[in-house]
Amino acid sequence: MNYTALIDKYLDGRLPKGDGLQTEIFEAMRYAVLNGGKRVRPSLALEFCRVCGGAVETALPAACALECIHSYSLVHDDLPCMDDDDYRRGRPSTHKAYGEATALLAGDALLTIAFEMAAESQSLEAVSILAKAAGCMGMVGGQTLDLASEKKQIPLSLLQEIHAKKTGALLIAAAKLGVILAGGNQKQLEAARIYGQKTGRVFQIIDDILDVTGSFADLGKPIGSDQGLEKSTYVTHMGVDKAYALAEKLTQEAIEGLAVFGDNAAELKDFAEALLRRRK
Amino acid sequence: MNYTALIDKYLDGRLPKGDGLQTEIFEAMRYAVLNGGKRVRPSLALEFCRVCGGAVETALPAACALECIHSYSLVHDDLPCMDDDDYRRGRPSTHKAYGEATALLAGDALLTIAFEMAAESQSLEAVSILAKAAGCMGMVGGQTLDLASEKKQIPLSLLQEIHAKKTGALLIAAAKLGVILAGGNQKQLEAARIYGQKTGRVFQIIDDILDVTGSFADLGKPIGSDQGLEKSTYVTHMGVDKAYALAEKLTQEAIEGLAVFGDNAAELKDFAEALLRRRK
Repeated sequence: MNYTALIDKYLDGRLPKGDGLQTEIFEAMRYAVLNGGKRVRPSLALEFCRVCGGAVETALPAACALECIHSYSLVHDDLPCMDDDDYRRGRPSTHKAYGEATALLAGDALLTIAFEMAAESQSLEAVSILAKAAGCMGMVGGQTLDLASEKKQIPLSLLQEIHAKKTGALLIAAAKLGVILAGGNQKQLEAARIYGQKTGRVFQIIDDILDVTGSFADLGKPIGSDQGLEKSTYVTHMGVDKAYALAEKLTQEAIEGLAVFGDNAAELKDFAEALLRRRK
Repeated sequence: MNYTALIDKYLDGRLPKGDGLQTEIFEAMRYAVLNGGKRVRPSLALEFCRVCGGAVETALPAACALECIHSYSLVHDDLPCMDDDDYRRGRPSTHKAYGEATALLAGDALLTIAFEMAAESQSLEAVSILAKAAGCMGMVGGQTLDLASEKKQIPLSLLQEIHAKKTGALLIAAAKLGVILAGGNQKQLEAARIYGQKTGRVFQIIDDILDVTGSFADLGKPIGSDQGLEKSTYVTHMGVDKAYALAEKLTQEAIEGLAVFGDNAAELKDFAEALLRRRK
Protein backbone atom coordinates (compact mmCIF):
# COMPACT_ATOMS: atom_id res chain seq x y z
CA MET A 1 0.00 0.00 0.00
CA ASN A 2 2.02 2.90 -1.24
CA TYR A 3 -0.21 5.58 -2.68
CA THR A 4 1.88 8.55 -1.58
CA ALA A 5 3.19 9.38 -5.06
CA LEU A 6 -0.29 9.09 -6.60
CA ILE A 7 -1.80 11.31 -3.90
CA ASP A 8 0.97 13.89 -4.05
CA LYS A 9 0.69 14.06 -7.83
CA TYR A 10 -3.05 14.68 -7.69
CA LEU A 11 -2.71 17.30 -4.96
CA ASP A 12 0.15 19.05 -6.77
CA GLY A 13 -1.90 19.20 -9.95
CA ARG A 14 -5.14 20.19 -8.22
CA LEU A 15 -3.95 22.91 -5.85
CA PRO A 16 -3.75 26.33 -7.52
CA LYS A 17 -0.53 27.95 -8.66
CA GLY A 18 0.02 31.45 -9.95
CA ASP A 19 2.31 34.41 -9.96
CA GLY A 20 -0.22 37.24 -9.49
CA LEU A 21 -1.38 39.00 -6.35
CA GLN A 22 -2.76 35.75 -5.00
CA THR A 23 0.57 33.92 -5.14
CA GLU A 24 0.94 34.17 -1.38
CA ILE A 25 -2.22 32.22 -0.53
CA PHE A 26 -1.61 29.64 -3.27
CA GLU A 27 1.88 29.10 -1.87
CA ALA A 28 0.57 28.90 1.69
CA MET A 29 -1.99 26.29 0.64
CA ARG A 30 0.69 24.24 -1.09
CA TYR A 31 3.09 24.70 1.84
CA ALA A 32 0.47 23.33 4.21
CA VAL A 33 -0.38 20.32 2.05
CA LEU A 34 2.69 19.40 -0.03
CA ASN A 35 4.97 18.78 2.90
CA GLY A 36 6.02 15.18 2.64
CA GLY A 37 3.16 14.07 4.89
CA LYS A 38 2.40 10.39 5.31
CA ARG A 39 -1.03 10.70 3.63
CA VAL A 40 -2.59 8.36 6.17
CA ARG A 41 -6.21 9.37 5.49
CA PRO A 42 -6.21 9.35 1.68
CA SER A 43 -4.17 6.13 1.60
CA LEU A 44 -6.77 4.46 3.79
CA ALA A 45 -9.55 5.61 1.49
CA LEU A 46 -7.76 4.30 -1.59
CA GLU A 47 -6.92 0.97 -0.02
CA PHE A 48 -10.47 0.37 1.21
CA CYS A 49 -11.63 1.19 -2.31
CA ARG A 50 -9.21 -1.37 -3.73
CA VAL A 51 -10.06 -4.15 -1.28
CA CYS A 52 -13.73 -3.71 -2.18
CA GLY A 53 -12.92 -4.20 -5.85
CA GLY A 54 -13.02 -0.53 -6.90
CA ALA A 55 -10.56 1.29 -9.16
CA VAL A 56 -8.33 3.36 -6.93
CA GLU A 57 -8.71 6.41 -9.20
CA THR A 58 -12.43 6.53 -8.43
CA ALA A 59 -11.68 7.43 -4.85
CA LEU A 60 -8.70 9.71 -5.53
CA PRO A 61 -10.47 13.11 -5.48
CA ALA A 62 -12.42 12.35 -2.28
CA ALA A 63 -9.29 10.82 -0.73
CA CYS A 64 -7.32 13.98 -1.43
CA ALA A 65 -10.21 16.05 -0.09
CA LEU A 66 -9.56 14.29 3.23
CA GLU A 67 -5.93 15.38 3.11
CA CYS A 68 -6.91 18.99 2.42
CA ILE A 69 -9.29 18.92 5.38
CA HIS A 70 -6.63 17.39 7.60
CA SER A 71 -4.10 20.01 6.45
CA TYR A 72 -6.44 22.95 7.00
CA SER A 73 -7.18 21.72 10.51
CA LEU A 74 -3.46 21.71 11.32
CA VAL A 75 -3.01 25.23 9.92
CA HIS A 76 -5.85 26.61 12.03
CA ASP A 77 -4.82 24.52 15.07
CA ASP A 78 -1.34 26.04 15.00
CA LEU A 79 -2.59 29.65 15.00
CA PRO A 80 -1.73 31.81 18.02
CA CYS A 81 -5.37 31.92 19.18
CA MET A 82 -5.41 28.11 19.21
CA ASP A 83 -2.36 25.97 20.13
CA ASP A 84 0.13 28.68 19.13
CA ASP A 85 2.59 26.20 17.65
CA ASP A 86 5.58 27.62 15.78
CA TYR A 87 6.59 24.30 14.29
CA ARG A 88 4.82 21.58 12.38
CA ARG A 89 6.57 18.55 10.95
CA GLY A 90 9.96 20.05 11.73
CA ARG A 91 9.50 23.34 9.91
CA PRO A 92 7.77 26.64 10.64
CA SER A 93 4.01 26.29 10.85
CA THR A 94 2.05 27.99 8.08
CA HIS A 95 1.37 31.23 9.96
CA LYS A 96 5.05 31.51 10.91
CA ALA A 97 5.96 31.18 7.25
CA TYR A 98 3.17 33.31 5.69
CA GLY A 99 1.63 35.39 8.47
CA GLU A 100 -1.57 34.84 10.38
CA ALA A 101 -4.07 36.35 7.94
CA THR A 102 -2.77 34.36 4.98
CA ALA A 103 -2.65 31.18 7.05
CA LEU A 104 -6.24 31.70 8.18
CA LEU A 105 -7.41 32.23 4.59
CA ALA A 106 -5.27 29.37 3.26
CA GLY A 107 -6.96 27.10 5.79
CA ASP A 108 -10.39 28.34 4.72
CA ALA A 109 -9.45 27.80 1.07
CA LEU A 110 -8.20 24.26 1.72
CA LEU A 111 -11.42 23.35 3.50
CA THR A 112 -13.41 24.78 0.61
CA ILE A 113 -11.41 23.14 -2.19
CA ALA A 114 -11.85 19.84 -0.37
CA PHE A 115 -15.55 19.97 -1.25
CA GLU A 116 -14.76 20.82 -4.85
CA MET A 117 -12.69 17.62 -4.92
CA ALA A 118 -15.38 15.66 -3.10
CA ALA A 119 -17.94 16.74 -5.71
CA GLU A 120 -15.60 15.41 -8.40
CA SER A 121 -16.09 11.96 -6.95
CA GLN A 122 -19.65 12.17 -8.34
CA SER A 123 -21.05 10.98 -5.04
CA LEU A 124 -23.33 13.10 -2.89
CA GLU A 125 -22.88 10.55 -0.13
CA ALA A 126 -19.13 11.21 -0.20
CA VAL A 127 -19.73 14.97 0.16
CA SER A 128 -22.09 14.37 3.04
CA ILE A 129 -19.78 11.94 4.86
CA LEU A 130 -16.88 14.36 4.55
CA ALA A 131 -18.88 17.34 5.79
CA LYS A 132 -20.24 15.45 8.77
CA ALA A 133 -16.84 14.02 9.71
CA ALA A 134 -15.12 17.41 9.44
CA GLY A 135 -17.80 19.55 11.07
CA CYS A 136 -18.94 20.51 14.55
CA MET A 137 -20.19 17.01 15.30
CA GLY A 138 -16.88 15.53 14.08
CA MET A 139 -13.38 16.97 13.83
CA VAL A 140 -14.22 20.59 14.71
CA GLY A 141 -16.36 19.29 17.56
CA GLY A 142 -13.30 17.45 18.86
CA GLN A 143 -11.21 20.61 18.64
CA THR A 144 -13.88 22.45 20.61
CA LEU A 145 -13.93 19.83 23.34
CA ASP A 146 -10.13 19.88 23.35
CA LEU A 147 -10.17 23.64 23.83
CA ALA A 148 -12.74 23.45 26.62
CA SER A 149 -10.58 20.85 28.38
CA GLU A 150 -7.25 22.65 28.09
CA LYS A 151 -5.21 22.93 31.23
CA LYS A 152 -7.73 20.69 32.97
CA GLN A 153 -7.57 17.17 34.24
CA ILE A 154 -10.35 15.43 32.34
CA PRO A 155 -11.80 11.93 32.73
CA LEU A 156 -10.66 9.21 30.32
CA SER A 157 -14.15 9.00 28.82
CA LEU A 158 -13.99 12.65 27.72
CA LEU A 159 -10.42 12.20 26.44
CA GLN A 160 -11.71 9.32 24.34
CA GLU A 161 -14.60 11.39 23.02
CA ILE A 162 -12.20 14.18 22.05
CA HIS A 163 -10.00 11.74 20.15
CA ALA A 164 -12.95 9.97 18.57
CA LYS A 165 -14.05 13.28 17.10
CA LYS A 166 -10.75 15.04 16.54
CA THR A 167 -8.84 12.14 15.00
CA GLY A 168 -11.29 9.27 14.65
CA ALA A 169 -13.99 10.98 12.61
CA LEU A 170 -11.75 11.66 9.59
CA LEU A 171 -10.16 8.19 9.71
CA ILE A 172 -13.58 6.56 9.83
CA ALA A 173 -14.69 8.81 6.97
CA ALA A 174 -11.59 7.77 5.00
CA ALA A 175 -12.31 4.08 5.38
CA LYS A 176 -16.02 4.50 4.64
CA LEU A 177 -15.42 6.68 1.58
CA GLY A 178 -13.22 3.98 0.09
CA VAL A 179 -15.94 1.35 0.51
CA ILE A 180 -18.72 3.61 -0.75
CA LEU A 181 -16.86 4.80 -3.84
CA ALA A 182 -16.06 1.18 -4.69
CA GLY A 183 -19.74 0.29 -4.37
CA GLY A 184 -19.07 -1.98 -1.38
CA ASN A 185 -21.78 -3.56 0.76
CA GLN A 186 -23.08 -2.78 4.27
CA LYS A 187 -20.91 -5.42 5.96
CA GLN A 188 -17.81 -3.96 4.38
CA LEU A 189 -18.93 -0.45 5.35
CA GLU A 190 -19.35 -1.46 8.97
CA ALA A 191 -15.96 -3.22 9.01
CA ALA A 192 -14.40 -0.07 7.57
CA ARG A 193 -16.03 2.05 10.27
CA ILE A 194 -14.70 -0.18 13.04
CA TYR A 195 -11.22 -0.25 11.50
CA GLY A 196 -11.19 3.56 11.24
CA GLN A 197 -12.40 3.90 14.81
CA LYS A 198 -9.85 1.52 16.33
CA THR A 199 -6.87 2.72 14.34
CA GLY A 200 -7.90 6.29 15.11
CA ARG A 201 -7.55 5.56 18.80
CA VAL A 202 -4.21 3.84 18.23
CA PHE A 203 -3.01 6.86 16.26
CA GLN A 204 -3.80 9.19 19.14
CA ILE A 205 -2.42 6.96 21.89
CA ILE A 206 0.88 6.65 20.02
CA ASP A 207 0.88 10.43 19.51
CA ASP A 208 0.53 10.90 23.26
CA ILE A 209 3.30 8.40 23.92
CA LEU A 210 5.65 9.93 21.36
CA ASP A 211 5.04 13.33 22.90
CA VAL A 212 6.79 12.22 26.07
CA THR A 213 9.25 9.65 24.69
CA GLY A 214 10.01 10.93 21.20
CA SER A 215 12.62 13.40 20.06
CA PHE A 216 12.08 16.62 18.14
CA ALA A 217 13.51 15.00 15.02
CA ASP A 218 11.09 12.08 15.36
CA LEU A 219 7.93 14.03 15.93
CA GLY A 220 8.54 17.31 14.12
CA LYS A 221 7.43 19.43 17.07
CA PRO A 222 8.91 20.21 20.47
CA ILE A 223 8.71 17.27 22.87
CA GLY A 224 6.30 17.63 25.71
CA SER A 225 4.36 20.44 24.01
CA ASP A 226 1.11 18.83 25.17
CA GLN A 227 2.41 18.53 28.73
CA GLY A 228 3.36 22.20 28.63
CA LEU A 229 -0.35 22.99 28.40
CA GLU A 230 -1.02 20.52 31.24
CA LYS A 231 -3.19 18.48 28.96
CA SER A 232 -4.68 15.19 29.96
CA THR A 233 -3.38 12.46 27.65
CA TYR A 234 -3.46 8.68 27.57
CA VAL A 235 -0.02 8.82 29.18
CA THR A 236 -1.07 11.06 32.07
CA HIS A 237 -4.06 8.75 32.60
CA MET A 238 -2.46 5.32 32.45
CA GLY A 239 1.27 5.73 31.90
CA VAL A 240 3.30 4.77 28.83
CA ASP A 241 3.21 0.99 29.30
CA LYS A 242 -0.52 0.60 29.81
CA ALA A 243 -1.25 3.08 27.03
CA TYR A 244 0.91 1.07 24.66
CA ALA A 245 -0.77 -2.18 25.73
CA LEU A 246 -4.16 -0.59 24.95
CA ALA A 247 -2.91 0.50 21.53
CA GLU A 248 -1.74 -3.07 20.88
CA LYS A 249 -5.15 -4.45 21.86
CA LEU A 250 -7.00 -1.98 19.63
CA THR A 251 -4.69 -2.78 16.72
CA GLN A 252 -5.45 -6.46 17.17
CA GLU A 253 -9.19 -5.77 17.15
CA ALA A 254 -8.90 -3.57 14.05
CA ILE A 255 -7.08 -6.39 12.28
CA GLU A 256 -9.62 -9.02 13.33
CA GLY A 257 -12.41 -6.91 11.83
CA LEU A 258 -10.72 -7.14 8.43
CA ALA A 259 -11.83 -10.78 8.11
CA VAL A 260 -14.82 -9.65 6.02
CA PHE A 261 -12.43 -8.66 3.23
CA GLY A 262 -10.91 -12.16 3.02
CA ASP A 263 -7.30 -12.50 1.92
CA ASN A 264 -7.40 -9.12 0.25
CA ALA A 265 -6.67 -6.97 3.28
CA ALA A 266 -3.07 -7.87 4.11
CA GLU A 267 -1.93 -4.32 3.52
CA LEU A 268 -4.57 -2.90 5.84
CA LYS A 269 -3.22 -5.27 8.49
CA ASP A 270 0.31 -4.02 7.86
CA PHE A 271 -0.94 -0.46 7.94
CA ALA A 272 -2.57 -0.88 11.35
CA GLU A 273 0.63 -2.46 12.68
CA ALA A 274 2.73 0.34 11.21
CA LEU A 275 0.58 2.91 13.01
CA LEU A 276 1.31 1.10 16.24
CA ARG A 277 5.03 1.02 15.56
CA ARG A 278 5.40 4.55 14.19
CA ARG A 279 8.11 6.68 15.67
CA LYS A 280 7.33 9.94 13.91
CA MET B 1 -40.08 38.35 -2.22
CA ASN B 2 -39.96 37.81 1.49
CA TYR B 3 -38.25 34.57 2.33
CA THR B 4 -36.60 35.74 5.54
CA ALA B 5 -38.91 33.81 7.87
CA LEU B 6 -38.55 30.63 5.79
CA ILE B 7 -34.77 30.95 5.72
CA ASP B 8 -34.46 31.76 9.42
CA LYS B 9 -36.69 28.84 10.33
CA TYR B 10 -34.57 26.42 8.30
CA LEU B 11 -31.31 27.79 9.74
CA ASP B 12 -32.64 27.72 13.28
CA GLY B 13 -33.71 24.11 12.88
CA ARG B 14 -30.57 23.05 11.07
CA LEU B 15 -27.84 24.65 13.18
CA PRO B 16 -26.88 22.53 16.18
CA LYS B 17 -28.01 23.23 19.74
CA GLY B 18 -26.94 21.57 22.95
CA ASP B 19 -26.07 22.06 26.56
CA GLY B 20 -22.92 19.97 26.84
CA LEU B 21 -19.27 20.96 26.56
CA GLN B 22 -19.81 22.06 22.96
CA THR B 23 -22.51 24.59 23.83
CA GLU B 24 -20.07 27.44 23.31
CA ILE B 25 -19.35 26.69 19.64
CA PHE B 26 -23.00 25.91 18.87
CA GLU B 27 -23.96 29.25 20.39
CA ALA B 28 -21.22 31.06 18.50
CA MET B 29 -22.40 29.51 15.22
CA ARG B 30 -25.97 30.56 15.93
CA TYR B 31 -24.86 34.01 17.07
CA ALA B 32 -23.02 34.51 13.79
CA VAL B 33 -25.94 33.35 11.63
CA LEU B 34 -29.19 34.04 13.48
CA ASN B 35 -28.67 37.76 13.76
CA GLY B 36 -31.56 39.32 11.91
CA GLY B 37 -29.52 39.50 8.70
CA LYS B 38 -31.23 40.46 5.45
CA ARG B 39 -30.61 37.03 3.89
CA VAL B 40 -29.74 38.58 0.55
CA ARG B 41 -27.97 35.55 -0.91
CA PRO B 42 -30.45 32.82 0.06
CA SER B 43 -33.41 35.03 -0.92
CA LEU B 44 -31.88 35.48 -4.37
CA ALA B 45 -31.42 31.75 -4.75
CA LEU B 46 -35.02 31.05 -3.75
CA GLU B 47 -36.46 33.73 -6.02
CA PHE B 48 -34.47 32.58 -9.06
CA CYS B 49 -35.73 29.07 -8.32
CA ARG B 50 -39.31 30.35 -8.23
CA VAL B 51 -39.09 32.44 -11.42
CA CYS B 52 -37.76 29.36 -13.23
CA GLY B 53 -40.80 27.38 -12.10
CA GLY B 54 -39.17 25.44 -9.28
CA ALA B 55 -40.57 24.78 -5.82
CA VAL B 56 -38.81 27.14 -3.44
CA GLU B 57 -38.22 24.34 -0.91
CA THR B 58 -36.02 22.53 -3.44
CA ALA B 59 -33.47 25.30 -3.22
CA LEU B 60 -33.78 25.96 0.52
CA PRO B 61 -30.85 23.86 1.82
CA ALA B 62 -28.42 25.18 -0.80
CA ALA B 63 -29.73 28.72 -0.28
CA CYS B 64 -29.08 28.47 3.45
CA ALA B 65 -25.65 27.01 2.73
CA LEU B 66 -24.89 30.34 1.04
CA GLU B 67 -25.88 32.18 4.20
CA CYS B 68 -23.65 29.96 6.35
CA ILE B 69 -20.72 30.63 4.01
CA HIS B 70 -21.41 34.35 4.07
CA SER B 71 -21.63 34.30 7.87
CA TYR B 72 -18.42 32.33 8.34
CA SER B 73 -16.58 34.77 6.08
CA LEU B 74 -17.70 37.67 8.28
CA VAL B 75 -16.61 35.86 11.46
CA HIS B 76 -13.13 35.19 10.07
CA ASP B 77 -12.91 38.66 8.48
CA ASP B 78 -13.54 40.31 11.83
CA LEU B 79 -10.76 38.40 13.62
CA PRO B 80 -7.83 40.46 14.97
CA CYS B 81 -5.41 39.00 12.40
CA MET B 82 -7.76 40.17 9.61
CA ASP B 83 -9.82 43.38 9.83
CA ASP B 84 -9.89 43.37 13.64
CA ASP B 85 -13.46 44.60 13.84
CA ASP B 86 -15.09 44.68 17.27
CA TYR B 87 -18.57 45.26 15.90
CA ARG B 88 -20.75 43.63 13.30
CA ARG B 89 -24.35 44.61 12.61
CA GLY B 90 -24.39 46.81 15.69
CA ARG B 91 -23.31 44.22 18.22
CA PRO B 92 -20.01 42.66 19.28
CA SER B 93 -18.42 40.57 16.53
CA THR B 94 -18.29 36.83 17.19
CA HIS B 95 -14.75 36.77 18.59
CA LYS B 96 -15.58 39.65 20.95
CA ALA B 97 -18.56 37.69 22.22
CA TYR B 98 -17.02 34.19 22.34
CA GLY B 99 -13.25 34.57 22.14
CA GLU B 100 -10.94 34.12 19.18
CA ALA B 101 -10.49 30.37 19.28
CA THR B 102 -14.22 29.65 19.43
CA ALA B 103 -14.91 32.20 16.69
CA LEU B 104 -12.28 30.61 14.46
CA LEU B 105 -13.76 27.14 14.99
CA ALA B 106 -17.34 28.39 14.66
CA GLY B 107 -16.38 29.86 11.28
CA ASP B 108 -14.79 26.57 10.23
CA ALA B 109 -17.89 24.69 11.38
CA LEU B 110 -20.24 27.02 9.47
CA LEU B 111 -18.23 26.58 6.28
CA THR B 112 -18.34 22.83 6.77
CA ILE B 113 -22.05 22.57 7.58
CA ALA B 114 -22.74 24.62 4.46
CA PHE B 115 -21.60 21.64 2.39
CA GLU B 116 -23.74 19.27 4.43
CA MET B 117 -26.68 21.49 3.49
CA ALA B 118 -25.56 21.72 -0.13
CA ALA B 119 -25.45 17.93 -0.35
CA GLU B 120 -29.04 17.85 0.90
CA SER B 121 -30.05 19.66 -2.27
CA GLN B 122 -29.27 16.37 -4.06
CA SER B 123 -27.26 18.24 -6.67
CA LEU B 124 -23.53 17.70 -7.16
CA GLU B 125 -23.54 20.74 -9.40
CA ALA B 126 -24.81 22.83 -6.48
CA VAL B 127 -21.99 21.57 -4.27
CA SER B 128 -19.46 22.35 -6.95
CA ILE B 129 -20.81 25.85 -7.67
CA LEU B 130 -20.77 26.69 -3.97
CA ALA B 131 -17.23 25.42 -3.45
CA LYS B 132 -15.89 27.31 -6.45
CA ALA B 133 -17.66 30.53 -5.50
CA ALA B 134 -16.48 30.37 -1.89
CA GLY B 135 -12.92 29.22 -2.51
CA CYS B 136 -9.57 30.70 -3.42
CA MET B 137 -10.71 31.55 -6.94
CA GLY B 138 -13.85 33.19 -5.56
CA MET B 139 -14.66 34.74 -2.19
CA VAL B 140 -11.49 33.74 -0.35
CA GLY B 141 -9.52 34.86 -3.40
CA GLY B 142 -11.15 38.27 -3.07
CA GLN B 143 -10.25 38.44 0.60
CA THR B 144 -6.66 37.62 -0.30
CA LEU B 145 -6.51 40.36 -2.90
CA ASP B 146 -8.12 42.72 -0.41
CA LEU B 147 -5.47 41.88 2.14
CA ALA B 148 -2.66 42.35 -0.36
CA SER B 149 -4.09 45.76 -1.28
CA GLU B 150 -4.61 47.05 2.25
CA LYS B 151 -3.30 50.52 2.97
CA LYS B 152 -2.46 50.88 -0.70
CA GLN B 153 -3.94 52.98 -3.44
CA ILE B 154 -5.02 50.43 -6.03
CA PRO B 155 -6.32 50.88 -9.58
CA LEU B 156 -10.06 50.69 -10.18
CA SER B 157 -9.62 47.49 -12.22
CA LEU B 158 -8.14 45.70 -9.21
CA LEU B 159 -10.81 47.13 -6.92
CA GLN B 160 -13.40 45.69 -9.28
CA GLU B 161 -11.68 42.30 -9.33
CA ILE B 162 -11.63 42.26 -5.53
CA HIS B 163 -15.33 43.01 -5.37
CA ALA B 164 -16.17 40.57 -8.15
CA LYS B 165 -14.56 37.81 -6.11
CA LYS B 166 -15.28 38.92 -2.56
CA THR B 167 -18.93 39.89 -3.02
CA GLY B 168 -19.87 39.00 -6.58
CA ALA B 169 -18.93 35.32 -6.58
CA LEU B 170 -21.45 34.35 -3.88
CA LEU B 171 -24.24 36.48 -5.37
CA ILE B 172 -23.66 34.93 -8.79
CA ALA B 173 -23.64 31.50 -7.17
CA ALA B 174 -26.92 32.33 -5.41
CA ALA B 175 -28.66 33.29 -8.63
CA LYS B 176 -27.24 30.32 -10.54
CA LEU B 177 -28.12 27.83 -7.80
CA GLY B 178 -31.74 28.95 -7.95
CA VAL B 179 -31.91 28.37 -11.71
CA ILE B 180 -30.09 25.03 -11.56
CA LEU B 181 -32.16 23.61 -8.72
CA ALA B 182 -35.34 24.61 -10.58
CA GLY B 183 -34.06 22.80 -13.69
CA GLY B 184 -33.83 26.08 -15.64
CA ASN B 185 -32.24 26.43 -19.08
CA GLN B 186 -28.93 27.89 -20.24
CA LYS B 187 -30.42 31.28 -21.16
CA GLN B 188 -31.89 31.61 -17.71
CA LEU B 189 -28.60 30.54 -16.17
CA GLU B 190 -26.69 33.19 -18.08
CA ALA B 191 -29.25 35.87 -17.16
CA ALA B 192 -28.90 34.84 -13.52
CA ARG B 193 -25.12 35.11 -13.75
CA ILE B 194 -25.30 38.62 -15.17
CA TYR B 195 -27.87 39.70 -12.59
CA GLY B 196 -25.68 38.37 -9.77
CA GLN B 197 -22.62 40.07 -11.21
CA LYS B 198 -24.26 43.49 -11.65
CA THR B 199 -26.11 43.54 -8.34
CA GLY B 200 -22.92 42.34 -6.65
CA ARG B 201 -21.16 45.45 -7.88
CA VAL B 202 -24.05 47.65 -6.80
CA PHE B 203 -23.98 46.04 -3.37
CA GLN B 204 -20.31 46.91 -2.93
CA ILE B 205 -20.54 50.43 -4.33
CA ILE B 206 -23.38 51.23 -1.93
CA ASP B 207 -21.35 49.70 0.90
CA ASP B 208 -18.48 52.02 0.06
CA ILE B 209 -20.83 55.01 -0.10
CA LEU B 210 -22.56 54.15 3.19
CA ASP B 211 -19.18 53.82 4.84
CA VAL B 212 -18.60 57.54 4.37
CA THR B 213 -22.18 58.86 4.49
CA GLY B 214 -23.99 56.40 6.79
CA SER B 215 -24.30 56.50 10.54
CA PHE B 216 -23.30 53.79 13.00
CA ALA B 217 -26.93 52.90 13.55
CA ASP B 218 -27.49 52.56 9.80
CA LEU B 219 -24.48 50.42 9.00
CA GLY B 220 -23.90 48.50 12.21
CA LYS B 221 -20.18 49.27 12.28
CA PRO B 222 -18.14 52.36 12.95
CA ILE B 223 -18.36 54.87 10.10
CA GLY B 224 -15.25 55.33 8.07
CA SER B 225 -13.72 52.04 9.26
CA ASP B 226 -12.55 51.36 5.71
CA GLN B 227 -11.01 54.80 5.45
CA GLY B 228 -9.19 54.18 8.70
CA LEU B 229 -7.20 51.49 6.92
CA GLU B 230 -6.64 53.86 3.99
CA LYS B 231 -8.45 51.50 1.70
CA SER B 232 -9.19 52.29 -1.93
CA THR B 233 -12.95 52.29 -2.44
CA TYR B 234 -15.33 53.33 -5.19
CA VAL B 235 -15.71 56.59 -3.28
CA THR B 236 -11.99 57.34 -3.09
CA HIS B 237 -11.78 56.56 -6.81
CA MET B 238 -14.71 58.51 -8.18
CA GLY B 239 -16.45 60.31 -5.33
CA VAL B 240 -19.92 59.64 -3.93
CA ASP B 241 -21.94 61.10 -6.82
CA LYS B 242 -20.22 59.27 -9.66
CA ALA B 243 -20.14 56.06 -7.65
CA TYR B 244 -23.88 56.31 -7.09
CA ALA B 245 -24.47 57.04 -10.78
CA LEU B 246 -22.50 53.89 -11.64
CA ALA B 247 -24.58 51.87 -9.18
CA GLU B 248 -27.74 53.22 -10.84
CA LYS B 249 -26.47 52.25 -14.29
CA LEU B 250 -25.56 48.73 -13.15
CA THR B 251 -28.95 48.31 -11.49
CA GLN B 252 -30.61 49.29 -14.74
CA GLU B 253 -28.54 46.73 -16.66
CA ALA B 254 -29.31 44.02 -14.12
CA ILE B 255 -33.02 44.73 -14.50
CA GLU B 256 -32.85 44.72 -18.32
CA GLY B 257 -31.28 41.26 -18.22
CA LEU B 258 -34.37 39.93 -16.43
CA ALA B 259 -36.36 40.11 -19.69
CA VAL B 260 -35.70 36.42 -20.30
CA PHE B 261 -37.93 35.59 -17.33
CA GLY B 262 -40.92 37.46 -18.79
CA ASP B 263 -43.42 39.02 -16.41
CA ASN B 264 -42.37 36.71 -13.64
CA ALA B 265 -39.38 38.70 -12.40
CA ALA B 266 -40.99 41.80 -10.91
CA GLU B 267 -39.65 40.99 -7.46
CA LEU B 268 -36.11 40.58 -8.73
CA LYS B 269 -36.47 44.04 -10.25
CA ASP B 270 -37.64 45.41 -6.90
CA PHE B 271 -34.81 43.58 -5.17
CA ALA B 272 -32.18 45.18 -7.40
CA GLU B 273 -33.70 48.59 -6.79
CA ALA B 274 -33.82 47.99 -3.05
CA LEU B 275 -30.11 47.15 -3.05
CA LEU B 276 -29.47 50.50 -4.68
CA ARG B 277 -31.59 52.33 -2.16
CA ARG B 278 -30.44 50.50 0.96
CA ARG B 279 -29.34 52.61 3.87
CA LYS B 280 -28.02 49.87 6.14
